[in-house]
Amino acid sequence: MDQYVYTFTEGDRTMGDLLGGKGANLAEMTRLGLPVPPGFTITTEACREYLAAGEPPGELRVQVTGALRTLEDTVGRRLGDADEPLLVSVRSGAKFSMPGMMETVLNVGLTDVSVHGLALASGDARFAWDSYRRLVQMFGKTVLGIDGEVFAAALDAAKAAKDVTSDLDLDATDLERLVGEFLAIVRTSTGHDFPQDPRDQLDQAIYAVFDSWNTDRARLYRRRERIPNDLGTAVNICTMVFGNLGESSGTGVCFTRDPATGHLGVYGDYLPNAQGEDVVSGVRNTLSLEDMARLDPASHGELRRIMRTLETHYRDLCDIEFTVERGRLWMLQTRVGKRTAAAAFRIAVQLVDEQLITLDDALARVSGAQLALLMFPQFDAGVERAPLTRGMAASPGAAVGRIVFDSATATEWAARGEQVVLVRRETNPDDLEGMVASIGVLTSRGGKTSHAAVVARGMGKTAVCGADGIEVDPVARTVRARGASGAQAVVLREGDVISIDGSTGEVFAGAVPVVPSPVARYLEEGLVVAVQGLAGEAVELVVAVDRLLRHADSVRRLSVRANADTAEDAARARSLGAQGIGLCRTEHMFLGERRVLIERVVLAETPAAREGALADLLPLQRQDVIELLEAMDGLPTTIRLLDPPLHEFLPDRAELMVRVARAEERGEPHDDDIALLAAVDRLHESNPMLGLRGVRLGLVVPGLFALQVRAIAEAAVERLRAGGRPKVEIMVPLVGSVMELYLIRDECDGIITEVAAAAGLDLTIPIGTMVELPRAALTAFRIAEAAEFFSFGTNDLTQTTWGFSRDDVEAGFFAAYLDKGVFTVSPFESLDVDGVGRLVRLAVKEGRRTRPDLKLGVCGEHGGDPESIHFFHSVGLDYVSCSPFRIPVARLEAGRATVLRGDVRGATAEDDVFD
Amino acid sequence: MDQYVYTFTEGDRTMGDLLGGKGANLAEMTRLGLPVPPGFTITTEACREYLAAGEPPGELRVQVTGALRTLEDTVGRRLGDADEPLLVSVRSGAKFSMPGMMETVLNVGLTDVSVHGLALASGDARFAWDSYRRLVQMFGKTVLGIDGEVFAAALDAAKAAKDVTSDLDLDATDLERLVGEFLAIVRTSTGHDFPQDPRDQLDQAIYAVFDSWNTDRARLYRRRERIPNDLGTAVNICTMVFGNLGESSGTGVCFTRDPATGHLGVYGDYLPNAQGEDVVSGVRNTLSLEDMARLDPASHGELRRIMRTLETHYRDLCDIEFTVERGRLWMLQTRVGKRTAAAAFRIAVQLVDEQLITLDDALARVSGAQLALLMFPQFDAGVERAPLTRGMAASPGAAVGRIVFDSATATEWAARGEQVVLVRRETNPDDLEGMVASIGVLTSRGGKTSHAAVVARGMGKTAVCGADGIEVDPVARTVRARGASGAQAVVLREGDVISIDGSTGEVFAGAVPVVPSPVARYLEEGLVVAVQGLAGEAVELVVAVDRLLRHADSVRRLSVRANADTAEDAARARSLGAQGIGLCRTEHMFLGERRVLIERVVLAETPAAREGALADLLPLQRQDVIELLEAMDGLPTTIRLLDPPLHEFLPDRAELMVRVARAEERGEPHDDDIALLAAVDRLHESNPMLGLRGVRLGLVVPGLFALQVRAIAEAAVERLRAGGRPKVEIMVPLVGSVMELYLIRDECDGIITEVAAAAGLDLTIPIGTMVELPRAALTAFRIAEAAEFFSFGTNDLTQTTWGFSRDDVEAGFFAAYLDKGVFTVSPFESLDVDGVGRLVRLAVKEGRRTRPDLKLGVCGEHGGDPESIHFFHSVGLDYVSCSPFRIPVARLEAGRATVLRGDVRGATAEDDVFD
Repeated sequence: MDQYVYTFTEGDRTMGDLLGGKGANLAEMTRLGLPVPPGFTITTEACREYLAAGEPPGELRVQVTGALRTLEDTVGRRLGDADEPLLVSVRSGAKFSMPGMMETVLNVGLTDVSVHGLALASGDARFAWDSYRRLVQMFGKTVLGIDGEVFAAALDAAKAAKDVTSDLDLDATDLERLVGEFLAIVRTSTGHDFPQDPRDQLDQAIYAVFDSWNTDRARLYRRRERIPNDLGTAVNICTMVFGNLGESSGTGVCFTRDPATGHLGVYGDYLPNAQGEDVVSGVRNTLSLEDMARLDPASHGELRRIMRTLETHYRDLCDIEFTVERGRLWMLQTRVGKRTAAAAFRIAVQLVDEQLITLDDALARVSGAQLALLMFPQFDAGVERAPLTRGMAASPGAAVGRIVFDSATATEWAARGEQVVLVRRETNPDDLEGMVASIGVLTSRGGKTSHAAVVARGMGKTAVCGADGIEVDPVARTVRARGASGAQAVVLREGDVISIDGSTGEVFAGAVPVVPSPVARYLEEGLVVAVQGLAGEAVELVVAVDRLLRHADSVRRLSVRANADTAEDAARARSLGAQGIGLCRTEHMFLGERRVLIERVVLAETPAAREGALADLLPLQRQDVIELLEAMDGLPTTIRLLDPPLHEFLPDRAELMVRVARAEERGEPHDDDIALLAAVDRLHESNPMLGLRGVRLGLVVPGLFALQVRAIAEAAVERLRAGGRPKVEIMVPLVGSVMELYLIRDECDGIITEVAAAAGLDLTIPIGTMVELPRAALTAFRIAEAAEFFSFGTNDLTQTTWGFSRDDVEAGFFAAYLDKGVFTVSPFESLDVDGVGRLVRLAVKEGRRTRPDLKLGVCGEHGGDPESIHFFHSVGLDYVSCSPFRIPVARLEAGRATVLRGDVRGATAEDDVFD
Repeated sequence: MDQYVYTFTEGDRTMGDLLGGKGANLAEMTRLGLPVPPGFTITTEACREYLAAGEPPGELRVQVTGALRTLEDTVGRRLGDADEPLLVSVRSGAKFSMPGMMETVLNVGLTDVSVHGLALASGDARFAWDSYRRLVQMFGKTVLGIDGEVFAAALDAAKAAKDVTSDLDLDATDLERLVGEFLAIVRTSTGHDFPQDPRDQLDQAIYAVFDSWNTDRARLYRRRERIPNDLGTAVNICTMVFGNLGESSGTGVCFTRDPATGHLGVYGDYLPNAQGEDVVSGVRNTLSLEDMARLDPASHGELRRIMRTLETHYRDLCDIEFTVERGRLWMLQTRVGKRTAAAAFRIAVQLVDEQLITLDDALARVSGAQLALLMFPQFDAGVERAPLTRGMAASPGAAVGRIVFDSATATEWAARGEQVVLVRRETNPDDLEGMVASIGVLTSRGGKTSHAAVVARGMGKTAVCGADGIEVDPVARTVRARGASGAQAVVLREGDVISIDGSTGEVFAGAVPVVPSPVARYLEEGLVVAVQGLAGEAVELVVAVDRLLRHADSVRRLSVRANADTAEDAARARSLGAQGIGLCRTEHMFLGERRVLIERVVLAETPAAREGALADLLPLQRQDVIELLEAMDGLPTTIRLLDPPLHEFLPDRAELMVRVARAEERGEPHDDDIALLAAVDRLHESNPMLGLRGVRLGLVVPGLFALQVRAIAEAAVERLRAGGRPKVEIMVPLVGSVMELYLIRDECDGIITEVAAAAGLDLTIPIGTMVELPRAALTAFRIAEAAEFFSFGTNDLTQTTWGFSRDDVEAGFFAAYLDKGVFTVSPFESLDVDGVGRLVRLAVKEGRRTRPDLKLGVCGEHGGDPESIHFFHSVGLDYVSCSPFRIPVARLEAGRATVLRGDVRGATAEDDVFD
């Protein structure tokens, strides 16, 4: 026979599946001997059976009777008793918190009879009638499905009749009359009287909580939060206690230590003669716990003892809800408390120092997201300011600088020492130089995954994107902020100072004071430099970060590499702890003024002309690689061959067509443009993302990959001769079939052998591939035959698995998808484990089956995303590669992954990932 | 101990894995008691061990010695004997035919000594020296790796010295001298003498054949043909017999029945006093087998008996190679013979009538590809003609008509009864109307998967694409065919007659006589109509097609539906045997003049304007559906909601920009165009294939899907009221997450319920989804919760799995990929089983696990492709849907799939498709 009902004395906190989170913690506190109002919990299993069958399991009623009798015996009162009634609350409590999604009914047990008993027992008739009024209203709405507006209207009418505005101005007589009206509403709306049998009230309330599991909004919430539909909710029946029975009563919330600093001590709010909702609503000004100590030293003393017990027991900061009823303290709820990012680090290390937890535990309690927040400067919270407008918080930080509208100005002004913020409608690869020179980027179009946002996050620059309240006019060189209705529009000009907050999306005219980040300074310059001149709390924070980061490094299995395209980036990444380069995008070496070199290759009309153009590229490419290998000496350095479609190196087709048409109309010469247009037309693709790029370029454009491989091999030779330890690897992009890789390898291996022979040196240059197409993952067991390593290109893999382009997704439907709950987070930010992740798991498993020593990494944006890093750890990758700025986050999360999930390399090789 | 050597008396035709195809058939003929020159086969296993170890298995030499001694005893001669030498051929023979890929050495056993014995025994000194010359040359090149040019040069020098041009003019003395030179070449090139030990020759030849398995070209060939690399080849050692030992000798090839008509009787070529290569090379005119009967009645009689034995034994038409050596007949090879498409049908049914095979067997022996060829008219083979140029054979058939350059002209001329051929550089959806009006399409750009090709195949229209030898000038309205070098260019004008052959890609000026297809007539109008006025052979063909197609219908498990967008298409599909519509693309209902209606929706500036535009669409959409359901009454009709990006209904962005610029330059008014351009800009996407389309449109554009669902539901009501049996199904495109489908279903179900309630009728309209994104397949177990059916959209699934767009793939790299062997066939023509197919299998298995009665079909182009149909049968789909014209092919192949693979529905549910 199933046990559907557990009294609070029977459960414990490990039983969340069966008792829900709230029920399990109430049982735990009861088990610790803390003063919890007696009660019992109906299991999630009862709920599941009720929902499946459409009626409660027969045994449930019997078990509730038993538990209720025990409860009545314990407190010495009977539910709904005429003289001294026991009242109970009926609250939902699922395994996962679903705030506001499900139902609660308080004061169950009040009837036309027992309300008098309550008035008598409490000595407060108004209190009794108000309690009854609340029961009828809550029960009517929640259990009986009556429109809440009807009750609200009756309440308003009562106040209007008496010409008052506050509920508190209604006295016992008013409320008694109002209860009469409420009871009439119930009768009219349902055709039945309000149930006067207290047990009947209780049962109906329980079933209403069960039913609330399946409301539309609850289902929608679960879909969004990926909470399984078949869990069901538990129901907690708890003796009502009242903090509003006079000055010896009260209610409050408190934390076992300061959630901002972590310092031990009393931290909380107390409100005498009040109920819980009064504290939360902020209607009355709360008192401190010090005040409570003066007002009610006995209760306060007991609360302090209980706080210590809870923190020792939960080994963490707890938050607590409590009520004092006529001098007696009752615990209503506890859970591990939320805290700020800085407090998380401090508290974790404090608890280690207090011998309450281990360093592993401490690492588990901080997060990469918190560390990332701590790495950015922030606007001084103490300074008042009004934002001009607000966009998407695309890349955190606080940037203050002069407005510039193009790369050239940005570079020029930055060179003379100005701090500049680049303001554009949207950015494209041509703006890279300007972004490098700026301290922040503001765009009026695009969102969190737009070019501006992605690149800014990669560089660690502050960015606010898609601020559609501003109009950018790059010709007039103005930014116009539309005022609120009626307000005057504000116009800012080039050179005006602007402040952008990448953590909130706020944009301010003028300079807002900024507080620099001590954590960023520590990460870049080390502990000793960072703590100089810092205040105590900041020192404590930096020391805590240092300790946890070092511990993460000591336990993590995943290596952390950087995505870096220049020696400068590489050096910075190395100082932040990168253990190699996972992705060097050679196309980034041909931006700016070098673009014309690729243009020559593309426009070459004869093989000889193309070969000439390629030959001119060789020394430049070689020098780039030499510098990169020097910066990364001794560490693996993965260089990806050219990936983007060639037309990206040519002018925009539509603009060129317009230029030709205008010249034609004006009778001006335009032969060059016509020739250029012919080339652009030849290379034009309706979906360039799905066109001639990556390995396809290498197979179709003679000599292109050969040039790059030769440059890389010659650079390695140069470094060897200079006494260096180059560990370069060549990566082939966009492979979908092993045949492509075989063909490229045949060419590459030949060149490497030739260069090595000419130099008389041994060259070992592993050749691997990106896995960034579903087909590459699906045929990984074949591709591994020809690849010495795989690097998952999760950006492209996300695009093709979902069939949407990152460039287009934002503008079109991304906002709607977030809004409707199709996404909870952009799949470009955090890996879509169910879809894209499944392909990654498959490729890992089957790639390693073919080649057990296959090296596996990831170089998409996800390599720096905390949640995704845990996934990559779990599937057994060897390394993640991310933008230099994300490296500390990745180090921390890789360590956390080991602590939380164990060292699992190769574990999935045993799993059947498709069953 | 492994058996590495099998004499021909030991094997049989089931042992192809071990003995290769040739060896197994030689053994089979030996087993049947036919006169096969004695010999033995070395197994593929010996080859594998040799290749793995780099040296022959020790036991191999011993076993070869045993087999050789048995052979010598059998024929009574010794290998390389001085007086009467046994000579052998050493030939490769893998399991799968790899024509020309591997090596052969003839005349092994000739030495400086035995050549004299052969001269004496044959009484023909020239023959002996020529045989030795051939051995040294073949062995030198194949076994010793000497450049073949060196021998060829020496041979040429010998002829030049004697001032003759033919090898035949060299006499015994000349050839003896030449052998001396060849032996010197061997000595110089290798530093060793040509091996004079016959056994040494034999062993080296065997290892050379083994080695030939791993040459670059053999590996490349296997990669392309997907033949595993680890099979290895067998080696056949066979007693040499000579057909060139005088008039009582000869050689020939023959078929057991006429491979063109299937008629029983003698069919072959014979050449007295000749060797096999003389027949093949066509140097001498061959005789018929009737001639052979006169010249050598005994051998001819025996050959007839053997042919009958082989056909009875193989139960099929066989082709045979034979040699007569001095009046004695020897069988050198046999295999099942190739035949024309028409003969395949006739022969299959003849064999059934002769009780040699069952109808199931007969069905297995014809193919959909053959049926497709028979459905097209063809140019009269008897008429001589010279093509103007040649393009890709994009859609078969023979079309003769007047040249038109645009849709309007095509429609106009066709309306007055002209046959027209649409000639364009390339086609786009605007040309659809013109393609419908034309009997053929010719383009100068694009290839087999270009828009023109795909649409033409879908319509069953003849098409030649990518004929880059012509220049199309739609303004001057001319086609210019560049002449061969020096030749005059030919210019054709609108209205000139042109003939295009879609089976060969040839293009002719003027009218070439066409022979109509009796099979097409049969399929469209039935057997009785089709046979009227036909000749005997054509009647026999039509009857054979009818019998096999009806048998296919009786055995197949897969239903066959049509992709059809109009009532007209639907009716045609039904007459061709369609059992429903698997895909009706509603966007095709809004082309041509209705395009403006969608434009109004897109350009609507207020919700009210948009709702008005949608309301205007409703009656049109409803009427379309009513007509479709009427044509398909009683059969399932799947209607897909709007799929393409909305900007497809607007003008081209670049062209519009040019128009605006030109108007600006001219000072002409262009406000309307500026407004239009703003809308186009708003909807512009850099990769529209990966943008706002399909279900995304439905979730973002309010009312759009609702309009379509309402039209469909109301149409069903109308048909029910008219006494019809509408079986309509709604299909949601481009779903990647079950959440999208839940949201759309919520809306659709509500509308259907509302329409049904208003009509007072029961409406059952299943709602399903396309599975056309990798993520849909990867999460099929979830999506099946919300879908009553899946239809695999294998076109888009191929695009996203491979990451290339069908529109762009051709122009960019497709030709190179076919050339390099990355593809053997376009993955848009025949399903990529390893990549895309794996996703299909997964979705079938996991979708059915969630919903056992999930209906599964395919509606991509692959639904009409023979090879793909077998795959869809194997994975357990319920139906395939293809263009109307492909329906007979699909019916036939679905039947063949059952015969060849058994009825396997749900079999894969047991498989682990990822292990």
